[in-house]
Amino acid sequence: MATLHEISDPADPRLTDYRDLRDVQMRKHLEAENGLFLAEGEKVVRRAVEAGFTPRSFLMAPRWLDGLADVLATTEAPCFVMSEALAEEVTGFHVHRGALASLERLPLPSVDEVLDGARSVLVLEDIIDHTNVGAILRSGAALGFDAVLLAPRCADPLYRRSIKVAMGAVFTMPWTRLPDWYDALPSLSARGFTTVALTLTEDATPVEDAVAGLDRVALVLGSEGHGLSPRWEQSADRRAIIPMREGIDSLNVAAATAVACYVTARR
Amino acid sequence: MATLHEISDPADPRLTDYRDLRDVQMRKHLEAENGLFLAEGEKVVRRAVEAGFTPRSFLMAPRWLDGLADVLATTEAPCFVMSEALAEEVTGFHVHRGALASLERLPLPSVDEVLDGARSVLVLEDIIDHTNVGAILRSGAALGFDAVLLAPRCADPLYRRSIKVAMGAVFTMPWTRLPDWYDALPSLSARGFTTVALTLTEDATPVEDAVAGLDRVALVLGSEGHGLSPRWEQSADRRAIIPMREGIDSLNVAAATAVACYVTARR
Repeated sequence: MATLHEISDPADPRLTDYRDLRDVQMRKHLEAENGLFLAEGEKVVRRAVEAGFTPRSFLMAPRWLDGLADVLATTEAPCFVMSEALAEEVTGFHVHRGALASLERLPLPSVDEVLDGARSVLVLEDIIDHTNVGAILRSGAALGFDAVLLAPRCADPLYRRSIKVAMGAVFTMPWTRLPDWYDALPSLSARGFTTVALTLTEDATPVEDAVAGLDRVALVLGSEGHGLSPRWEQSADRRAIIPMREGIDSLNVAAATAVACYVTARR
Repeated sequence: MATLHEISDPADPRLTDYRDLRDVQMRKHLEAENGLFLAEGEKVVRRAVEAGFTPRSFLMAPRWLDGLADVLATTEAPCFVMSEALAEEVTGFHVHRGALASLERLPLPSVDEVLDGARSVLVLEDIIDHTNVGAILRSGAALGFDAVLLAPRCADPLYRRSIKVAMGAVFTMPWTRLPDWYDALPSLSARGFTTVALTLTEDATPVEDAVAGLDRVALVLGSEGHGLSPRWEQSADRRAIIPMREGIDSLNVAAATAVACYVTARR
């Protein structure tokens, strides 16, 4: 059973994990250096713990204790209890879902582990927006994809905002970082995946045709602003496009991913 | 040719249209009462003017004047020129795209005007998030939909954030508000549209089957949190679902819309 600690001082040193949640740069350093991530809201906290992540601590208003009682019963971690006003003072934002948890990151699995048994994989080059990374993970999980690989510059799927948008899919979908950017796609081809890059190049074919009849597929997506790097565009086995109305040449990356996942899952 | 006014005082009364852009509630009142909306960024400002909206004024840093010179040449509206620091002081946020315009809203067209000749229509019940409204308009435009109808409580497509996410699709896609919430769907059926509600009800069929072979289709989407109201769910002609992996029962509404539009456009 978690031990409850009533907190009245916002400067309490035990609250370090929860400070300045709106400061993205500061949080990146703090979370990476301390190997932690934050989960927000009863549902997400529950899913993180159920997925096997070890809580370091919880922070919540008294009215959330009952709803998470069964989760708190499974751990010895401290639970810091405070008013919602105090929680806002500590975190720098209105904790409207009332419950936060700080959890230990697990070591990232190897690419081989993540790909083991996978038939449909998403590969993200430089998606730098946490909302997009979360939305893509959620769509991939819902639409039957088995794993996600992230290039080195992709945003962190365990950042609070990503987790929230992914609705916890980041805890169950196998994912890892690609250690090598330059040869990432040829190395997937060598493992038996046909790499299909979503792009607007001249030789791109409709995605439905590009994936038809393929066994193992890696769907490759580029950044919000500039799309794929020339290296990834050219080293993919195939280039594909989502057919669009004349005069319009782009969907946002989360919408494009959802359509491409739907089509690919039905190949 | 727009007249240039160099601004040095952030309290200049001519800047009323641009104040406190981050205060959603305040902006709602100001924009509704004055019949204006804001466009942000060179590309969006250009698309708004080209689509026929009359500019009330422009606000920009000197370095954006050249890029928009051809747009400024088409109007007599004042253009307020100021440093980026001053622009930030006035608007309350970092105007990183450098150019803003305040434009006159046009009277909303009637439902009949918007539906004239339309074969594929999106109907949004209570999508309250501006980002989602913008993303849905963008996907609908890109994937071949002809019009969008909004229930009375839906977020404003001409709010700055919606426009930005829609990449200007809101200027070219015909849309309007439904005057009557209760009978909105029966009234579309009476006009010859088959209304297909995206929902998780037991009798929902896969969307691909639900739209197969239909002539005029109205795809009906509910709110981010609770989905469709019982009234809309029950008054739709058909209920449809996007097939998902077992144990997962939702996509976010923008992703679901993109998939459903793609499938419906290919019916």
